[in-house]
Amino acid sequence: LEKYLITGFSGFVSKHFIEFLDSLKIPCAVLGIDLYEPVFDFNRFLYIGCTFSKVDLLEKEQIENAVSGFRPDYILHLASYSSVAFSWKNPVASFSNNTNIYLNLMEQVRKLNAKCRILSVGSSEEYGNVSADEMPLSESHSLRPVSPYAVARVSQEMLSKIYVDSFSMDIIMTRSFNHVGPGQKDIFVISSFAKQLVEIKTHDIKRELRTGDTTIIRDFLDVRDVVKAYYQLFKKGEKGEIYNVCSGKGITLDKVISFMADILGMKIDVTINPELIRPNDNQIIIGNNEKIKLRTGWQPCIKLEQSLTDIINYWKARI
Amino acid sequence: LEKYLITGFSGFVSKHFIEFLDSLKIPCAVLGIDLYEPVFDFNRFLYIGCTFSKVDLLEKEQIENAVSGFRPDYILHLASYSSVAFSWKNPVASFSNNTNIYLNLMEQVRKLNAKCRILSVGSSEEYGNVSADEMPLSESHSLRPVSPYAVARVSQEMLSKIYVDSFSMDIIMTRSFNHVGPGQKDIFVISSFAKQLVEIKTHDIKRELRTGDTTIIRDFLDVRDVVKAYYQLFKKGEKGEIYNVCSGKGITLDKVISFMADILGMKIDVTINPELIRPNDNQIIIGNNEKIKLRTGWQPCIKLEQSLTDIINYWKARI
Repeated sequence: LEKYLITGFSGFVSKHFIEFLDSLKIPCAVLGIDLYEPVFDFNRFLYIGCTFSKVDLLEKEQIENAVSGFRPDYILHLASYSSVAFSWKNPVASFSNNTNIYLNLMEQVRKLNAKCRILSVGSSEEYGNVSADEMPLSESHSLRPVSPYAVARVSQEMLSKIYVDSFSMDIIMTRSFNHVGPGQKDIFVISSFAKQLVEIKTHDIKRELRTGDTTIIRDFLDVRDVVKAYYQLFKKGEKGEIYNVCSGKGITLDKVISFMADILGMKIDVTINPELIRPNDNQIIIGNNEKIKLRTGWQPCIKLEQSLTDIINYWKARI
Repeated sequence: LEKYLITGFSGFVSKHFIEFLDSLKIPCAVLGIDLYEPVFDFNRFLYIGCTFSKVDLLEKEQIENAVSGFRPDYILHLASYSSVAFSWKNPVASFSNNTNIYLNLMEQVRKLNAKCRILSVGSSEEYGNVSADEMPLSESHSLRPVSPYAVARVSQEMLSKIYVDSFSMDIIMTRSFNHVGPGQKDIFVISSFAKQLVEIKTHDIKRELRTGDTTIIRDFLDVRDVVKAYYQLFKKGEKGEIYNVCSGKGITLDKVISFMADILGMKIDVTINPELIRPNDNQIIIGNNEKIKLRTGWQPCIKLEQSLTDIINYWKARI
């Protein structure tokens, strides 16, 4: 029986990862750890036995208990304070709750000499300040992080390398680009747009869509493709290597909005809210996903139109 | 009256910095903070009024009290768990006591909106894995850190850049190469050699000098030149810039030993102790110091022979 330890278990990505695991119809065990109880039902699966344990990754003893008791084959490290905006307001908390929690986890695995493969999830934010002619970004591109969050992620990646090179630990690193999908919180751009549009449509109100800069281009990948990528990396990724997890395609937010308006059969007025425009934001971010495709055979399967339809249906069911 | 806040006050570099400040004969105030009381007498100076306060840089409130009460013009951030070997045994403690303490300090300065210039002392270890044909290392050289300590220093530097670019803080960063000088602990290579040689000479014993690999080449700078460099960077360095602090010259440890043997009038047998050979150590590290010379007019004044004589005399007085 394969055993998966998942940190940040109560989040959006974790939920999709265990749904994917269950869909494989291979019995396996999952120990989910998080500061907060998950709000989804993790006992409804046919093939996976899932338990939850409240663990603060800043507390070494709690990690030790989880790792030594469960003895995982795989650790999916999703726990993160992943908001760039938060990191500007609370750099210390953002840094500790990315880099320090990761280092604590690695140290406990090392000390216990636990034989497991670890997926260290990083972010496209690590690339930082990039220009249009550098697209698409491949893994060998230089890192110029521009937020405390991004620095924390680069630090996490550098520490991973050290642990692989010096302690022979089996770690694979990702740089994951923007996720989309049903269930994502409305602090993320597409989820926020979808929720607003469904509200306008449902209540038949004349309200405008509030946005930041909609001319920016981003690389969006459906969360269900993201979790498949993580699974493939566990199975076929090469130890010590870094993999972009992305669609390889860029799209403007304007185009995303117009897709969603078509799905809903609406005409949209867009109002740019200066407060939502991020200082020093990149005009364009697109990743190169050749490396993960070549190594693992993974490829994105869900078209953005499908993702947007599913996200709209998610909000329709809730508004 | 200029005011200097010095973290890591009880250490070797701090002592030389305040001696240098006093030698300028310009009255100034110093608040030294450290976890431990200094063992040197900091009340013996003619021109500087010096106070000490016990501060744990992991505790935000303690930093806040020190910074807001003293209102420094300059912060010399020397506090560090600076041992590479320690960082292998205690990566979490090494990381926290380099990166997190620095971030705590920056955050308190930012929140208090304190107008001061900060010198963030980094390390040549940040360059990491380098080859002979890349010497001398200039500041634009890529960073490939190979120890937890080195990653912590790179993280500190990346955070410094963010605080300069985004919060307009006045920070200057160094990458300081190997220091030598009287008063350095004997866990450092040259101080260890000098102490051993003086012991052998004094007790007239037939003992061999225990060393690691003596063919490696390093860039040693006298601590009295280091602290002058820090002072010049406070006065003339450019905000947001990184400066190598180094001699620009490489020397093998064999040559260092033979210099010291000459000074002592001894013939030396060297025994290589395999335990003292570091895994994956670089054969050669030499820095390029053109940038700091051009910008500040600083240049190294103390010849290595002089440093070695002073270090030997330091140990002679104690053995």
